[in-house]
Amino acid sequence: MKKIAILNGPNLNWLGKREPEIYGSTSLEQLEAALAREAETLGVQIVCAQSNTEGELIDTLYRWHKEGVAGVIFNPGAYTHTSIALRDCIAGTGIPVIEVHISNIHKREEFRHKSLTAPVCLGQICGLGLEGYSLALKYFAKN
Amino acid sequence: MKKIAILNGPNLNWLGKREPEIYGSTSLEQLEAALAREAETLGVQIVCAQSNTEGELIDTLYRWHKEGVAGVIFNPGAYTHTSIALRDCIAGTGIPVIEVHISNIHKREEFRHKSLTAPVCLGQICGLGLEGYSLALKYFAKN
Amino acid sequence: MKKIAILNGPNLNWLGKREPEIYGSTSLEQLEAALAREAETLGVQIVCAQSNTEGELIDTLYRWHKEGVAGVIFNPGAYTHTSIALRDCIAGTGIPVIEVHISNIHKREEFRHKSLTAPVCLGQICGLGLEGYSLALKYFAKN
Amino acid sequence: MKKIAILNGPNLNWLGKREPEIYGSTSLEQLEAALAREAETLGVQIVCAQSNTEGELIDTLYRWHKEGVAGVIFNPGAYTHTSIALRDCIAGTGIPVIEVHISNIHKREEFRHKSLTAPVCLGQICGLGLEGYSLALKYFAKN
Amino acid sequence: MKKIAILNGPNLNWLGKREPEIYGSTSLEQLEAALAREAETLGVQIVCAQSNTEGELIDTLYRWHKEGVAGVIFNPGAYTHTSIALRDCIAGTGIPVIEVHISNIHKREEFRHKSLTAPVCLGQICGLGLEGYSLALKYFAKN
Amino acid sequence: MKKIAILNGPNLNWLGKREPEIYGSTSLEQLEAALAREAETLGVQIVCAQSNTEGELIDTLYRWHKEGVAGVIFNPGAYTHTSIALRDCIAGTGIPVIEVHISNIHKREEFRHKSLTAPVCLGQICGLGLEGYSLALKYFAKN
Amino acid sequence: MKKIAILNGPNLNWLGKREPEIYGSTSLEQLEAALAREAETLGVQIVCAQSNTEGELIDTLYRWHKEGVAGVIFNPGAYTHTSIALRDCIAGTGIPVIEVHISNIHKREEFRHKSLTAPVCLGQICGLGLEGYSLALKYFAKN
Amino acid sequence: MKKIAILNGPNLNWLGKREPEIYGSTSLEQLEAALAREAETLGVQIVCAQSNTEGELIDTLYRWHKEGVAGVIFNPGAYTHTSIALRDCIAGTGIPVIEVHISNIHKREEFRHKSLTAPVCLGQICGLGLEGYSLALKYFAKN
Amino acid sequence: MKKIAILNGPNLNWLGKREPEIYGSTSLEQLEAALAREAETLGVQIVCAQSNTEGELIDTLYRWHKEGVAGVIFNPGAYTHTSIALRDCIAGTGIPVIEVHISNIHKREEFRHKSLTAPVCLGQICGLGLEGYSLALKYFAKN
Amino acid sequence: MKKIAILNGPNLNWLGKREPEIYGSTSLEQLEAALAREAETLGVQIVCAQSNTEGELIDTLYRWHKEGVAGVIFNPGAYTHTSIALRDCIAGTGIPVIEVHISNIHKREEFRHKSLTAPVCLGQICGLGLEGYSLALKYFAKN
Amino acid sequence: MKKIAILNGPNLNWLGKREPEIYGSTSLEQLEAALAREAETLGVQIVCAQSNTEGELIDTLYRWHKEGVAGVIFNPGAYTHTSIALRDCIAGTGIPVIEVHISNIHKREEFRHKSLTAPVCLGQICGLGLEGYSLALKYFAKN
Amino acid sequence: MKKIAILNGPNLNWLGKREPEIYGSTSLEQLEAALAREAETLGVQIVCAQSNTEGELIDTLYRWHKEGVAGVIFNPGAYTHTSIALRDCIAGTGIPVIEVHISNIHKREEFRHKSLTAPVCLGQICGLGLEGYSLALKYFAKN
Repeated sequence: MKKIAILNGPNLNWLGKREPEIYGSTSLEQLEAALAREAETLGVQIVCAQSNTEGELIDTLYRWHKEGVAGVIFNPGAYTHTSIALRDCIAGTGIPVIEVHISNIHKREEFRHKSLTAPVCLGQICGLGLEGYSLALKYFAKN
Repeated sequence: MKKIAILNGPNLNWLGKREPEIYGSTSLEQLEAALAREAETLGVQIVCAQSNTEGELIDTLYRWHKEGVAGVIFNPGAYTHTSIALRDCIAGTGIPVIEVHISNIHKREEFRHKSLTAPVCLGQICGLGLEGYSLALKYFAKN
Repeated sequence: MKKIAILNGPNLNWLGKREPEIYGSTSLEQLEAALAREAETLGVQIVCAQSNTEGELIDTLYRWHKEGVAGVIFNPGAYTHTSIALRDCIAGTGIPVIEVHISNIHKREEFRHKSLTAPVCLGQICGLGLEGYSLALKYFAKN
Repeated sequence: MKKIAILNGPNLNWLGKREPEIYGSTSLEQLEAALAREAETLGVQIVCAQSNTEGELIDTLYRWHKEGVAGVIFNPGAYTHTSIALRDCIAGTGIPVIEVHISNIHKREEFRHKSLTAPVCLGQICGLGLEGYSLALKYFAKN
Repeated sequence: MKKIAILNGPNLNWLGKREPEIYGSTSLEQLEAALAREAETLGVQIVCAQSNTEGELIDTLYRWHKEGVAGVIFNPGAYTHTSIALRDCIAGTGIPVIEVHISNIHKREEFRHKSLTAPVCLGQICGLGLEGYSLALKYFAKN
Repeated sequence: MKKIAILNGPNLNWLGKREPEIYGSTSLEQLEAALAREAETLGVQIVCAQSNTEGELIDTLYRWHKEGVAGVIFNPGAYTHTSIALRDCIAGTGIPVIEVHISNIHKREEFRHKSLTAPVCLGQICGLGLEGYSLALKYFAKN
Repeated sequence: MKKIAILNGPNLNWLGKREPEIYGSTSLEQLEAALAREAETLGVQIVCAQSNTEGELIDTLYRWHKEGVAGVIFNPGAYTHTSIALRDCIAGTGIPVIEVHISNIHKREEFRHKSLTAPVCLGQICGLGLEGYSLALKYFAKN
Repeated sequence: MKKIAILNGPNLNWLGKREPEIYGSTSLEQLEAALAREAETLGVQIVCAQSNTEGELIDTLYRWHKEGVAGVIFNPGAYTHTSIALRDCIAGTGIPVIEVHISNIHKREEFRHKSLTAPVCLGQICGLGLEGYSLALKYFAKN
Repeated sequence: MKKIAILNGPNLNWLGKREPEIYGSTSLEQLEAALAREAETLGVQIVCAQSNTEGELIDTLYRWHKEGVAGVIFNPGAYTHTSIALRDCIAGTGIPVIEVHISNIHKREEFRHKSLTAPVCLGQICGLGLEGYSLALKYFAKN
Repeated sequence: MKKIAILNGPNLNWLGKREPEIYGSTSLEQLEAALAREAETLGVQIVCAQSNTEGELIDTLYRWHKEGVAGVIFNPGAYTHTSIALRDCIAGTGIPVIEVHISNIHKREEFRHKSLTAPVCLGQICGLGLEGYSLALKYFAKN
Repeated sequence: MKKIAILNGPNLNWLGKREPEIYGSTSLEQLEAALAREAETLGVQIVCAQSNTEGELIDTLYRWHKEGVAGVIFNPGAYTHTSIALRDCIAGTGIPVIEVHISNIHKREEFRHKSLTAPVCLGQICGLGLEGYSLALKYFAKN
Repeated sequence: MKKIAILNGPNLNWLGKREPEIYGSTSLEQLEAALAREAETLGVQIVCAQSNTEGELIDTLYRWHKEGVAGVIFNPGAYTHTSIALRDCIAGTGIPVIEVHISNIHKREEFRHKSLTAPVCLGQICGLGLEGYSLALKYFAKN
C-alpha cells in the first residue's frame, strides 16, 4: 500500500488557535484525522509529524526517506523562507514533495513571497486553506 | 448549474508543441476536452478561452463576470509577471480566481518567481503539470 | 474650434463599479457626458476613447495626432507603470498630454508610485477624483 | 468666508529669478497677488507664507490648523523629497493638502521622483507651471 | 526559395516621423521596399509586418512559424524591455531571430539597456541605423 | 543635584492631539509635569525643551552640554530617520543620550525602521508609550 | 500573583564569559537571581529559561502561553535577525513581549540592525546593559 | 575689492572641541581669523558665517548672492549628504561654490561618501584639514 | 596530546548518498575513520560530531571549548549561509575554527557564496573534496 | 585607400582552442586572414592587433587614431564589462567603433549583460559568430 | 630637497586633445612643465610619469616609494573607479597621496562618483581644473 | 616529473613589507624558496612568477598551459575581485587552479568577499597565512 507523509513545520501545532481569521478553527489533530479518512477512500496510507525545530524536520525527512514514502505533503511554515538546510535535504534525498501553504503567501508580507524550498519541490499549492492538503493527497494518490 | 471558466494566456495556444520536456505533449484542445469531461462528472459546466493579447484577456474576464461565472481557473502565462492591468481587473471585479502554472515557476528564471496577479487571487497551484487545472476544478466544484 | 481628447486605459470601463470607495460611483459614460457639457461651456470640443489593450491606446494616440487634437487628457491606468511603448508614442508624436489619476497613486502599493509615462507628459494630476479630468480640461482650454 | 492657505517651501523666495527656463519669470509676490485676485472671484480668502526652514513650515501648518483653514496648497520644494517631519505634521493634523510642483518632477533627477509628503496629501499637481496653484485653488473653492 | 520575415513592433509605424535625429527620415514603407529589392539580389524572399499590439506580434510569429520562414529580423521596439510573452514565443517556437535596434540602446535611458528577448535570439545588432536590417538580411541569406 | 534633560523633536508639540490611537491623549505639558514629579522622587532635577527645527535641537544640545547635564532623554521624532547633523552633534559632544520613541517604530513604515541617531546613543527604548520616558529617567537617576 | 517570564536565546548561556567588554561579567545565573530578587520587591513572580535551539524557544513560548504568563522579557540573541518562526509564534499567541538587547544593536554590524521579532513585540529596549531586563520587569509589574 | 565668503554648516561651531583627533584643536574663531589674515595678503576680503539650521544657511547664501560675493567656500557639514534644498539654492543662484571638508569623507561611514551639493559646486577639496579652506581661498583669489 | 574536533552540520549525515557527483561516495563514518587514522600519524587526537540542529551544534562547540580542544574543523553545511547564532558562538568562545566545504561553494547558487561564519573563523578551505578536512587537520597539527 | 582596424582583447589569442562549442574552431590568425581577403574584395585595407593588457589596447587605439583609421571593429572581451579606461579612450578620441561579440552575451552570466564600452561606440553586433566581424567590415566599407 | 611625484593615469596622455570643453587645451607636457616651474619657486623638486596600464602605475609607485618621494599627486583617471590593486598599493606602501581630478566627477556619470582609491589617500581635490595639481603641490611643499 | 606553478598577482612583490600585521614578514623570494624545498620533498617541481599587470598574468597562464603544468597555485590579489579576463583565461584553458589568499578575505572590506575567479577554480584556501600555499602544494602533489 502506497504511503504518503504529511509534515507540518513551526507553529502549526497551534492550528485552529493561531489567527483563526487566516488559518480557520480546525486543529492539527482534526486535520490529520480528516486526511487519514480521505486517504482510506483513496486507497493510500498516511503518516504525520509536526515539529518546531528545523533539525527535527530534517531528521524526519531522512527517516521517511529510508522507510520509502511515496511522497511528502510539506507545510514548512516560516522555515519556507529561511531554511537552506531543509532545501538541501529535499534535494539530496530526491524525495517528491508538494509544498502546501494554508494562506495565500503572496498576499502577505514581502518576506513571505520567496520560498527557498519550492525550487526543489515538485510543486506548490497555496491559498486554498486546508483543502490544499487534500488536493495534494489526491495528486499523490493518482500519480 | 455552476459555471467555471478556464482562461489561458499568451503562448498556451502552443501547448503540446512548446518545450514538451517542460509542458508535456497534450494540446490545448485536448486539455479543454478532458476538463469538460471531468466537469460533467463533477456536475459543473465549463467555458474556455485563450488569447495572446493582455487587453483581450481583460475583456474576457469582464464578460464572464457579467455572465456570473462562479470561479476562474487562470493561467496568465508570461503576463503573470508583468501585468498590473490584469491584477487590477481581478481585484476590481472581485471574481474568485485560482492561478495555475503547469511548470514549477520557482525552479525557473528569477523573473518568473514573482507573480503580480497571485496577491489578488484566491490561491495558486504550480508545478503539478496539467493536473493543476484538474485540482483547481475540483476545488471550485466543491467550494 | 479647439479639440481636446480624453483617453482612458485598462479597467476604466469598469468605473463606478470597481472599488467604489476608491473610485466613486460615477460610470465612464457619465464622466464623459459631464466633461462634454463642461467643454461646451469652455468653448472647446472633446473626443473620448477607452481601451484595455495597450496597442489600441497607441493606435488611438497616432490617429488623434493626425487629426490635430490640441491636447490629450490621459489616464493610462495600470499601463502607467509598465508601458514603455506608450511612453515612446507620446514622446515620438510630441502631443501634449496631461496624465490624470483618480486616486492618489502615492498612497497605494509601491509599484504604483513610479510612472513611466509622466516624464514625457506635460504634467500630472492625481488624487483629486474625477475633478482631475475637469481641471485638466480647464488647463487645455486656457493654454 | 472659506480660508485657503498657500505655503511655499525652500528657494521659492527666488521664484522668477531661479532657472527661469524651468520656473518662469513671475516672482513669488506677483504669484501671490494673482492668486488673491482669483480667490476674490471665487469667493474665498487666501493667506500666504514662505520659508526656507523646515521647522518654520511645520510651525506655520500648526498655526493655520488652529485658525481653521479649509485647505492648504503646498509646494514643499526640496523638502518634498527629504522631510518626514512635514509628512508627520500633515498626517497628524489631518489638514487637507494639495501638493503643487511648478515643474514636472518626473522629468528631472531620480531623487525628485519620490515624494515623502504626497502619500499623506489629498493629491498632487505637477508640471503645469504656476497654473497648478490656480487649479488647486479652484478645487478647494468648489470642494 | 528561402523566406525571411521582417517584424517591427510598437511605434515603428511612425518611422521617419518620430525623433528623426535618432531614427532618420526613411518611412517604414520605404525601408520595407528597400529590403525587398536587396532580398531579390540575394536570391531570397521577404515578408513584412508591423503592429503596436504585443499579442498581435506573438500571433504573427506563430503564423510565420507554421509557414516555415527561415529566419525573422525583429525590432521589438519598447516590448524589448517589457515582454516576457514575446520571449516565451521565440523560445517556444525555436524560430531563429536576429534582434535589430536602429539606435544604440546602450546610449539611452537605463531601462533600455536590458533586453528580455535577446537571450532567446540568435544575436543582436544595434546602433547601425537602418543598415542593421540589411546586415541581418545578409546573414540569413548566407547562413 | 544631578540634572537630566528631556528633549522632544518635531510634532511632539502636538502630543495628545496627533493620532491619539498611537500616541495617547496626554499633552506634552502634562508629560513634562509628570516627569518632573517623578524626578523629584528620584532625587534628580530635569530641564525640558521641544522644537520643530533641526538646527534648534542641535543648539539646545550644545547649550545643555555646556551646562553639564548628566544625560539626555531624546525623542528626535522624524529627524531620527533623516538627521546626520543631530547624529554628529551627539557623537561630537559625547553627551550620554537615551533615544525614546512612544510607538513601536518597527511596526510602522519601512523608513521608520532605521535610526540615524541610535548608533551614537547609549541605547534606545521604543513602543512602551510615555512609560519609555519614565524608564529612561530611572536609568539616568541610577547610573 | 502576576507571573513574568524571562527568555534568553542563543549564546546567552555564555553571558559573563563572551566578549565581556560588550556584555559585562555577570553570568546568566547571577542575572536571573538578581531579577528574582527585584521581582519579589515588585510583588511579581518570574520564571526563566534559556536555549540555543530556535524550536525549543518556540516550544517554551507556547508552554508559558498556556500557563498564562502576563508578559515575556525576551532576548532572542542572534535569532532576532533570522527567525520568522519566532515572530510567527509571538504574533500567533498574542503574548505581550518586550524585546531586550544588552548591547546597542544599532552600533554593531549592519545585519544586526534589523529585527524580525520587534514588529510583533510590544516594544524594545537596547543598549542599556543588564539594566534593560530590570526596566522591562518594572514595566510589566506596573502595566 | 573682491569679496569671498566662508560658510560653515552644522556642528562646525564646535570645531576644536569635537573629535580633535579628526578635526584638530583650532576653533572656528581662530580659523576665521587666520583666513582673514591670509585674505589680506592675497588682496581680497572675506565674510564669514556659521549656522546649525539648514534654512539659515540658505538665507545666508541668498543674502550674499545679492551682495555680490565672488565665491563661497562652503563646508555644509552633515547637510552635504541630506540637503536637496541647499543644492537647489546653489544651482538656482549660480553662485560659484567650492565645497570643503576637513576630514577625508571617503574614509568614513558609507552615508558620508555621497554629496548632494557637490554636483552643483565648482569643485570639492577634502581630507586636507583646515588647509583645505586656505587652498580654496587661494583659488578664488586667483580665478 | 593535542585534541582536534571535527564538526559536521546539516545533511552531512547523508554524505556518500547525497548528490554523489558533487560529494563523492564516501560516507561520514568512513571519512571520520580516515581522519582518525591520519590524526594518529600526525600525533594528534580527534573527536567528531554531526547534527542537523543549529542549537545542538552550538551546544557542542561550547562543550568542546570547555574541554579545551585546540581547533575545530567545521563544515556548517547550509547553516554557513543563515546562522548568525553559530557565528556569535565562534566569536564569543574565541575557539580557532577552519571552515571546510567539500564542494566549491562559489560555483553554486548565489545564496551559497556568502558565508556568515567565515569572518569569525581562522580561514576557509573549499572545493577540494574530502581532502579539505585532511589539509585542515595538517594545519592544526602543525600550528 | 580606406583603412579599417580590427582589435581583439583578452583571451582572443586563444580563439579556436577556448570553449570551441561557444567560439568555434577557427584560430585568430585564420580569422584575420579571412577578413583581409574580404577587405580586398570590398576595396578597403585592414590592420589587426590583439592584446591581453588593458593599457596596450588603449595605446593601440591612440596609435591608430593618429594614423587616421576610418573605423575600428573591436571585441574587448572581458574588458567590455570592466574597463572605464577603454570607454574614456573611445569617447576621448571620437574614433568610430563597432563592438563585436562572437557569442550572444545576453545568454550568458549576468555580469556579461552590461557593456561599459557600448554606450560610446557606434553600435554593437553580438551572437552572430565570426560572421559579426564580417558584417561590421561591410558596414565600414560602405559608410 | 623634498621630492614630490606627479602621476597621471589612463588617457591623460591625451590631455588638451580629449574633450577640451571639459579638460581644457593644455597638453600633459605643458602641464608638467608649468608644475616644474612652480615647484622651483616653492623650493621642491618634482618627478612625473604617465601610463595607460594599471600594473605600470603600481610599479611606478613602488619605485618612487623606494626612492623616498615625500608625496604623490595622483590622477588615476578611470582606474579611480575600478582599481582595487592601486588602492592596495597606496595602502600597503603608506605613501601620502592626494588624488586630483580635473573635472568635477560628481557632476558626471553615476559610476564616476565612487572612488576606490580616495579612502586610502590623504585627501582629494576635484573640479578645479589644472589648478588642482598646483594646489596639491602647494600643500605638499608646506606640509 | 610533475610541474606545479605558483602565480602571485598585484602587490605581492611587496610581501613582508606591506601591512606585516596582516601578511607577516616573509618576503616573496623567501616564500618561493621555501615552497621549492617542500616541492623537492614531495617529489614535484615548481615554477614561480609574479606581476602587477593583469595582462601579464594572463600571458603567463597561457604560456604555462602550453608547457603542460599540472596545476597552478594562484593568489590573484586585488584582481580576484575585478578581473573577468583572468576568469575567462582559467575557464578557457581548463587549467586546474587553487586560489590562495594569505588573509581571511571574509574578515575584510565588503568588496573583498566576492571572488570573480573562484567559480572557475578547483577550490580556494584563505586565511591560513603562507601555510595556504603549502597546503595547496600538498594537494597537487597528491591528486
